Amino acid sequence: MATCSADLAPLLGPNATAAADYICNKFSDSSFAVDNTYLLFSAYLVFSMQLGFAMLCAGSVRAKNTMNIMLTNVLDAAIGGLFYYLFGFAFAFGSPSNGFIGRHHFALRSIPSSSIDYSNFLYQWAFAIAAAGITSGSIAERTQFVAYLIYSSFLTGFVYPVVSHWFWATDGWGSAFRSDDFLFGSGVIDFAGSGVVHIVGGVAGLWGALIEGPRIGRFDHSGRSVALRGHSATLVVLGTFMLWFGWYGFNPGSFNKISPFYTSGSYYGQWSAVGRTAVTTTLAGCTAALTTLFGKRILTGHWNVTDVCNGLLGGFAAITAGCSVVEPWAAIICGFVAALVLIGCNKLAEKVKYDDPLEAAQLHGGCGAWGVIFTALFASEKYVREVYPSRPVRYGLFMGGGGRLLAAHIIQILVIVGWVSVTMGTLFYILHKLRLLRISAEDELAGMDLTRHGGLAYVYHDEDENESQKQRTEMRKIESHPTPPPV
Amino acid sequence: MATCSADLAPLLGPNATAAADYICNKFSDSSFAVDNTYLLFSAYLVFSMQLGFAMLCAGSVRAKNTMNIMLTNVLDAAIGGLFYYLFGFAFAFGSPSNGFIGRHHFALRSIPSSSIDYSNFLYQWAFAIAAAGITSGSIAERTQFVAYLIYSSFLTGFVYPVVSHWFWATDGWGSAFRSDDFLFGSGVIDFAGSGVVHIVGGVAGLWGALIEGPRIGRFDHSGRSVALRGHSATLVVLGTFMLWFGWYGFNPGSFNKISPFYTSGSYYGQWSAVGRTAVTTTLAGCTAALTTLFGKRILTGHWNVTDVCNGLLGGFAAITAGCSVVEPWAAIICGFVAALVLIGCNKLAEKVKYDDPLEAAQLHGGCGAWGVIFTALFASEKYVREVYPSRPVRYGLFMGGGGRLLAAHIIQILVIVGWVSVTMGTLFYILHKLRLLRISAEDELAGMDLTRHGGLAYVYHDEDENESQKQRTEMRKIESHPTPPPV
Amino acid sequence: MATCSADLAPLLGPNATAAADYICNKFSDSSFAVDNTYLLFSAYLVFSMQLGFAMLCAGSVRAKNTMNIMLTNVLDAAIGGLFYYLFGFAFAFGSPSNGFIGRHHFALRSIPSSSIDYSNFLYQWAFAIAAAGITSGSIAERTQFVAYLIYSSFLTGFVYPVVSHWFWATDGWGSAFRSDDFLFGSGVIDFAGSGVVHIVGGVAGLWGALIEGPRIGRFDHSGRSVALRGHSATLVVLGTFMLWFGWYGFNPGSFNKISPFYTSGSYYGQWSAVGRTAVTTTLAGCTAALTTLFGKRILTGHWNVTDVCNGLLGGFAAITAGCSVVEPWAAIICGFVAALVLIGCNKLAEKVKYDDPLEAAQLHGGCGAWGVIFTALFASEKYVREVYPSRPVRYGLFMGGGGRLLAAHIIQILVIVGWVSVTMGTLFYILHKLRLLRISAEDELAGMDLTRHGGLAYVYHDEDENESQKQRTEMRKIESHPTPPPV
Repeated sequence: MATCSADLAPLLGPNATAAADYICNKFSDSSFAVDNTYLLFSAYLVFSMQLGFAMLCAGSVRAKNTMNIMLTNVLDAAIGGLFYYLFGFAFAFGSPSNGFIGRHHFALRSIPSSSIDYSNFLYQWAFAIAAAGITSGSIAERTQFVAYLIYSSFLTGFVYPVVSHWFWATDGWGSAFRSDDFLFGSGVIDFAGSGVVHIVGGVAGLWGALIEGPRIGRFDHSGRSVALRGHSATLVVLGTFMLWFGWYGFNPGSFNKISPFYTSGSYYGQWSAVGRTAVTTTLAGCTAALTTLFGKRILTGHWNVTDVCNGLLGGFAAITAGCSVVEPWAAIICGFVAALVLIGCNKLAEKVKYDDPLEAAQLHGGCGAWGVIFTALFASEKYVREVYPSRPVRYGLFMGGGGRLLAAHIIQILVIVGWVSVTMGTLFYILHKLRLLRISAEDELAGMDLTRHGGLAYVYHDEDENESQKQRTEMRKIESHPTPPPV
Repeated sequence: MATCSADLAPLLGPNATAAADYICNKFSDSSFAVDNTYLLFSAYLVFSMQLGFAMLCAGSVRAKNTMNIMLTNVLDAAIGGLFYYLFGFAFAFGSPSNGFIGRHHFALRSIPSSSIDYSNFLYQWAFAIAAAGITSGSIAERTQFVAYLIYSSFLTGFVYPVVSHWFWATDGWGSAFRSDDFLFGSGVIDFAGSGVVHIVGGVAGLWGALIEGPRIGRFDHSGRSVALRGHSATLVVLGTFMLWFGWYGFNPGSFNKISPFYTSGSYYGQWSAVGRTAVTTTLAGCTAALTTLFGKRILTGHWNVTDVCNGLLGGFAAITAGCSVVEPWAAIICGFVAALVLIGCNKLAEKVKYDDPLEAAQLHGGCGAWGVIFTALFASEKYVREVYPSRPVRYGLFMGGGGRLLAAHIIQILVIVGWVSVTMGTLFYILHKLRLLRISAEDELAGMDLTRHGGLAYVYHDEDENESQKQRTEMRKIESHPTPPPV
Repeated sequence: MATCSADLAPLLGPNATAAADYICNKFSDSSFAVDNTYLLFSAYLVFSMQLGFAMLCAGSVRAKNTMNIMLTNVLDAAIGGLFYYLFGFAFAFGSPSNGFIGRHHFALRSIPSSSIDYSNFLYQWAFAIAAAGITSGSIAERTQFVAYLIYSSFLTGFVYPVVSHWFWATDGWGSAFRSDDFLFGSGVIDFAGSGVVHIVGGVAGLWGALIEGPRIGRFDHSGRSVALRGHSATLVVLGTFMLWFGWYGFNPGSFNKISPFYTSGSYYGQWSAVGRTAVTTTLAGCTAALTTLFGKRILTGHWNVTDVCNGLLGGFAAITAGCSVVEPWAAIICGFVAALVLIGCNKLAEKVKYDDPLEAAQLHGGCGAWGVIFTALFASEKYVREVYPSRPVRYGLFMGGGGRLLAAHIIQILVIVGWVSVTMGTLFYILHKLRLLRISAEDELAGMDLTRHGGLAYVYHDEDENESQKQRTEMRKIESHPTPPPV
């Protein structure tokens, strides 16, 4: 402080420019400090969603596949860390580049720069691994471990980064952050990624699950659906709450900065918009949870906590696109419809015998798509102006903003579905053809923990020690079978 | 930065007022950014307590009621979200209004304003649902689901908001934030809500549990107490640690702002008070945990982790009122006595055959009341001046501050107990009379998960798949009984 | 804002010094606010690691000792809270003092000061309890509870604080924060404590486990190693993810301040270094996880999630020393080698029949030591200058910085190992001689939960209620045995 005064005092006299520079530099420092604090802690919250996914997935599968699914969740983060560092981030946000893919900042070269700091990388990495986490749910309980390693690398290192380039980078062809040539004179408003993250993860999972087919026993001989209940509702609730917690990093954190003002000296600035985003997120999730509660009560006759958890998450997946640009009351509509969309998608999935242990395609794909549409209908003019100041003002159709935003958003959905289908669908198909995708029926019945991961996840009783002896014997037995060794 | 300098430089010369405005506006922006960062992340931490409650409750009940209790915890948050948005927040902090209830800002109308931003709403919502979470513990394992829905809405939407209006709003009759006419010339210092949150939740639970009566088997034929052990100590510890973590949002976060200075340019400012609050909170909890450890060892002969967890939480509930205005050494006294209060309340509860599966009334009600008294005894003059600058200086009786604060605090306890008894007690009584409160003995023995929530929370063993077949049969059997269908 | 302008405007005219003071004071306030926000939330994250430890430990032991190990984790935090407040912090950071031990600020006397605020205490407390948490893992499943209470107090109150004084206080003999007389003209760069925290905790655990000997059944009659599997892989994964989450407080938080600039007005400042530290931490952990995955697959033939978790944590323990001063690519090398070090240490442990249920000595001791060496090899000149500006510039040997840093780091390892061996080794030996260290064989076979902690952690099935009846009988039976009562 003493130094600061000594430096500043002489400047305040005659030398106005130097004084102004001095003061403004310090304001700039101050903004960097608070913005990075905000972004880094938001990144940590988004990372905590990985814990949420792990617990949600673990609880939703049968006990015999718990170690398997949790390992994939740990590895999504670990593989994602390396690949997103090496090239994923470069594909996504390398600039200047073309509209399709970035090509700078491989292995964080030339970072930090005036527009990108390490905190931005960390934040985006946490997003990338979320997409991979979504997909792992769809193909749980029947997928070879090596297939996980391959798709997770491909998804976090290439497929997802390219999509995020399109809609979030300053060069992306559909981005709202371009300087000109906006898609339909509007560009896409997918603030925190109902499309970029959730549809990507959901559609990838859809193809994986479709190509593999349902788990053994999921539909009985007469084709009736048989619930294969997850082994722990407690883990489902734990995971859901962690995801809720982490979503406060995901949505409000997507501003990247909290310090920009709208009018200097006013109480109303970007910090308010960040708070409003937390509120719309909360309201959409809460409404979706309640809608699911009563909806399912009517449909099935009981109050089901795991269904409510999924409904809640569906509400979050939906509000993610528009969270920063809609009014709180609109978030309630968003959540209400999201719950219905999820129920509908699940009905449809049963009808077509689609088996997704986590309902991931339905939840992230279905509700994510609704969220993209919802934003194009309800985005408010005022908020769009504030949050996306440099873009032509196109806002929600129902708010009087015309149809261009909706057109752009429909294109976004179609293109994402197409791109992920072509890339991930092809990948899963190749893995399938190479017999690298699905485990053997024998392994599936025994469970992967026993056959591939060194034993079961739980040993609760003393007697189990003898059992684990038994297990080891059994494992040897299984492994000595003359089946071709999966990787 | 360049823009900032260009704007500022001409001002620094002759135009002193404009220069000062310019600079001061930017300082104001900067404070808003950091204060909202601090408050929002505090709100997220408080929200994470809901996860803590869910796990604590789940672990403390028997396995057969796990789905039920977790669902109530999810719904506390969800119902609270909608109702607190629609009117709870308005009742609590709508201003200008009368001393009893607020009447502005329904559905966040006219927010943000110069005194309330979205972050304030989010923070207060997280508090409201905590109160409901407390109550759900008291009436666990024997309450109809519809009763939960009703009381939770009423508590978060009306009963709790009114109390928080009284003691925290600028118009509240007992508030320390009034401009004049302070209760006993002092007003109540209930910084983060030992009274407003914990006594409210605890007394509501007390009435629910009293009216329902104890769980079947909790007291045997000869009237002796039989522990109905929770099904997972691991979940209890997990929940306790999450609550501890979240309490750092609850107590230090209650300043709402971290940037105010006491003397500009000094290292000592509100940021220090925030840190001190985290320290007093920690010390009270730690002391209560250790006191409980040794106390219970003497009383029962073993070292009990779940008792230590409850003791710890009792220490937190007690320090919550005075955390910002007492010295760290006083927090140790607070925690020590809180542990004894909890042990005493539990003894008393056994004696009067009061059954509270989570000890919630004892812990939040009993220790909360001690915390309110403690504050009136130990609040330090210096800290009271700093934290409550506009209020007449009345501080702790034992610190030489006279008895007016104590008088106000005794009134606070009495009025809260009265208000919650009249509202929630009446509600529970009506539900009881309408046969909507307690489940049937048959359901209670079978467990609510099986009878109302679609099955048990856990399926650990392969053989359980047959069991779950069995379950379904059993469920049908139970449901086909000719009992009147509860909602 | 209005007040601010009114105050400032007259100053901006003729009175340059007063104007500068006024402005600079406000910048100072602003920095304090953001730095304390950053440090407090970092402290909360570090605290959340205690939850991580508790779950990791619980999952890694057999079900029959779950209550025991979790209680020690809760008590590490609670005992640490009191003892670190009373004297631990004073020993560590009391200043002015000598090179060996601090002697001011007992019970936080004279705090806050211009260099230490409450947030610093809280942050350091969270570190102290982490060290104790590490040790509890090594001696799990066979240690008397009273021994835990004693060593935990001694470690958090004295042994650890002294080490942190040596390397982190401004007076410490090996510290990089001294004003002159640096060890080897360099001082030690142990940024977040691979040595100060992890080697300390690991070596303490090593001595405890060595003196106690292995658990019954850990090595069979022919001396072959028998895995005593932990009872829940889910808890291991949960704990690991929480530790990962908390490590973002541990490493990036160790800057204590985020607002210092390197060149005022530049986008590159300490906030970037904080972000970079989060990135190096992430990359080291991810690389170690993947290395372990493939390494273990080759060695054991299956994909093991608990091994991957340990590998990941080993990577974190290793990067902790150098996280702020190495390039991201170097962090990948750090993690890669850390995984190999852990595998090697585990091989060695099996060979010498060392039994450590959590691999804590191997992981925190072994990988911690590698991290200290790694930093001396790879610390970059640029980052060392920025992060440790007042120290003579000695940086990594492989980066062209010469061998003095390496010499200092080797001394650090030797001295820590010596100090902890002398203090904690002696303590464990005395406890052993007094028969206070190891439980009886009978208790070990029955499990400590049943014999000392009031019952098992889990009651999953209704039938278990009869079982818990059985339990009680058994407990009585065990307790009535004529063995001398352990405390």
